[in-house]
Amino acid sequence: MSEEPVGGDLSRLRQLNASAVLRELRGDQPLTLTELSKRTGLSRASTEDVARDLLGRGWLAEVAPALGSVGRPARRYRFNAGAGRLLGVDIGGHKVLALVTDLDGEVLNQTRIAVDPEAGRRERLAVMDRCVTKALTGAGVEAGQIWSTGVATTGLVDGSGKVMLSDSLPEWSGVDLAAHVRRLVPGPVRVENDCKLAALAETWHGVARYAKDVVFLLAGLRTGAGLIIDGKLHRGFANWSGEIGALPAAGWLRAPEHLTAWLETTTRRDASTSVGFESVFIAARAGDQGALQAVRDYVRDLAVGTSALVLTLDPQLVVIGGGFSRSADVMVEPLRRELDRWCLRTPEIRVSAFADEGVALGAVRLALEEVESTITTGLRP
Amino acid sequence: MSEEPVGGDLSRLRQLNASAVLRELRGDQPLTLTELSKRTGLSRASTEDVARDLLGRGWLAEVAPALGSVGRPARRYRFNAGAGRLLGVDIGGHKVLALVTDLDGEVLNQTRIAVDPEAGRRERLAVMDRCVTKALTGAGVEAGQIWSTGVATTGLVDGSGKVMLSDSLPEWSGVDLAAHVRRLVPGPVRVENDCKLAALAETWHGVARYAKDVVFLLAGLRTGAGLIIDGKLHRGFANWSGEIGALPAAGWLRAPEHLTAWLETTTRRDASTSVGFESVFIAARAGDQGALQAVRDYVRDLAVGTSALVLTLDPQLVVIGGGFSRSADVMVEPLRRELDRWCLRTPEIRVSAFADEGVALGAVRLALEEVESTITTGLRP
Repeated sequence: MSEEPVGGDLSRLRQLNASAVLRELRGDQPLTLTELSKRTGLSRASTEDVARDLLGRGWLAEVAPALGSVGRPARRYRFNAGAGRLLGVDIGGHKVLALVTDLDGEVLNQTRIAVDPEAGRRERLAVMDRCVTKALTGAGVEAGQIWSTGVATTGLVDGSGKVMLSDSLPEWSGVDLAAHVRRLVPGPVRVENDCKLAALAETWHGVARYAKDVVFLLAGLRTGAGLIIDGKLHRGFANWSGEIGALPAAGWLRAPEHLTAWLETTTRRDASTSVGFESVFIAARAGDQGALQAVRDYVRDLAVGTSALVLTLDPQLVVIGGGFSRSADVMVEPLRRELDRWCLRTPEIRVSAFADEGVALGAVRLALEEVESTITTGLRP
Repeated sequence: MSEEPVGGDLSRLRQLNASAVLRELRGDQPLTLTELSKRTGLSRASTEDVARDLLGRGWLAEVAPALGSVGRPARRYRFNAGAGRLLGVDIGGHKVLALVTDLDGEVLNQTRIAVDPEAGRRERLAVMDRCVTKALTGAGVEAGQIWSTGVATTGLVDGSGKVMLSDSLPEWSGVDLAAHVRRLVPGPVRVENDCKLAALAETWHGVARYAKDVVFLLAGLRTGAGLIIDGKLHRGFANWSGEIGALPAAGWLRAPEHLTAWLETTTRRDASTSVGFESVFIAARAGDQGALQAVRDYVRDLAVGTSALVLTLDPQLVVIGGGFSRSADVMVEPLRRELDRWCLRTPEIRVSAFADEGVALGAVRLALEEVESTITTGLRP
């Protein structure tokens, strides 16, 4: 009788082992092989083996032995987030935002360039090129040093990195974003819908870190959703999940109109940016009755689609992100009341702690996913 | 450097190995160890080891060697579905249905006893007792021979097998079904919501066998949903998923009223059973304009909530089950047209091939899940 696995077995096992070691080392404390072996439940020999492989790939670094050890001090290891660089790009209606980070999402440079919402494909891509170049320069990083790139865009994206359909950006349906970005940075490029990536960012470094089932709401000029199910981003059969906003009965198409109406009749401020919209929330916060009513009407419509998501998935957590999340203080309580009205169980509601870099940070996480998937294939068989 | 995994490693690996061997043997063909090793990618030694364990537990059986083999013929193995017995019980509004099956869900006895929809808790439980006893007797099986039992009920169920909330059955909220059934059959008992189990049955032996993401619709006097996500039944944080029907905007609360209205004004037949409802579909099939309109109105409301589920999850497949699925021929095309209207991508629509035993068969699958979870813990470490 042999315990020795071979072939497909082994690589699956080694992937589990490598992931277990990396997971333990993602914390702040460097660990010895003995500690790693204890925490992961792996044998000493397997732990040593995995550590050697990960050191060779630069994922781990050795740390100076602890002071005051008696006898020959044991080597200690930490996750080497500095081993590589990742790029995350968020292409929105009003701006392009690029992040250059280390392997743990620590931002080395954040560059934002405004773009006209009416800009066509060529103009928007040109802004993206400038934004990426500026971010790389700002971080002091050559394009060739980027291990992997993630790109976020509004609209529906296919598996190859092409935008299938975008209602909100002019001339955007059909653009092959992955191919375009590959001309700028030579590493692998993955493209995904912005709401999905914002959800991913929340489970990585945001307020949803400890939740397995999460509904993320992008609340802004547009309303969108990203779903984390059983700890993973849910994409769906054709990657078109989270699009409940397209259903009129869900209320999301109509929701922002209440805010627009107040803006138009009252202040005549620019209602085409979420900053312009902010004046409704400011007035509501100051007690303006009309503004309060407009916010209540907005939340009432927002809550219908949100309740549909909650009743469908029974998530642990609803996270509010997007442009309006800055004004969440006047939205959360009315939203909770509406959810209480429709849902069998109202989940916890949290507000994103990101300013507006959540989507780009999710794009970085997507880039890291690509790198992590090479752990298995990179290890010796 | 050692390849030998220990501790937690090993049991996870052995579970993967045992599952892989069982998966290959669930087909019709008995297989030799050489064939099993090749198909699973496991080493010969690991395959032999797993097979020995599974034989010891009765999950595998040896088959007579193939005729005409030259030399000493190789032993062949098959999944031994006959090794154990499972019990599945469906407690509905109008009936209790019990199935006694083998480990593959092959039905040895199916017993149905009608129950008054207005029956209270005690009466309904008494009917269930009789139904289970009759099914066991019919199958020639002692209660002690049942390896595991699954129970399906309408309403929301908690993890311990208690009904948390049931709107449709009188005095049903709070009943501890698991405890009650344990008095009848000594093995482990698991309880789950009927829509969820019907979805499970479709992925096991029904029309959704090859799909990873499935929306199952229970279309009948009540409308409900069960969700298969990434190949697994999605339960949610408190096991309250799939309840979108509670949201008025989803249209499901109102949907059956169109059928009731036609029945009341036209035929005055009994509208309290789905058989009574069938006359609407019969009339629609015969071309009655009023009945056709009633079905169209029903489907229009059904489609709103269904579109919400489809837009949220982007499933590969929508399966229609429940009492009205017998009349699916007049429902599918109108439903497809409505989904085309609201959804970005209309998934394939299939009609359940089960008569009304789908829910009970899902309860059997739940019982099998319980048995399968012992594969790991039961194998020697």
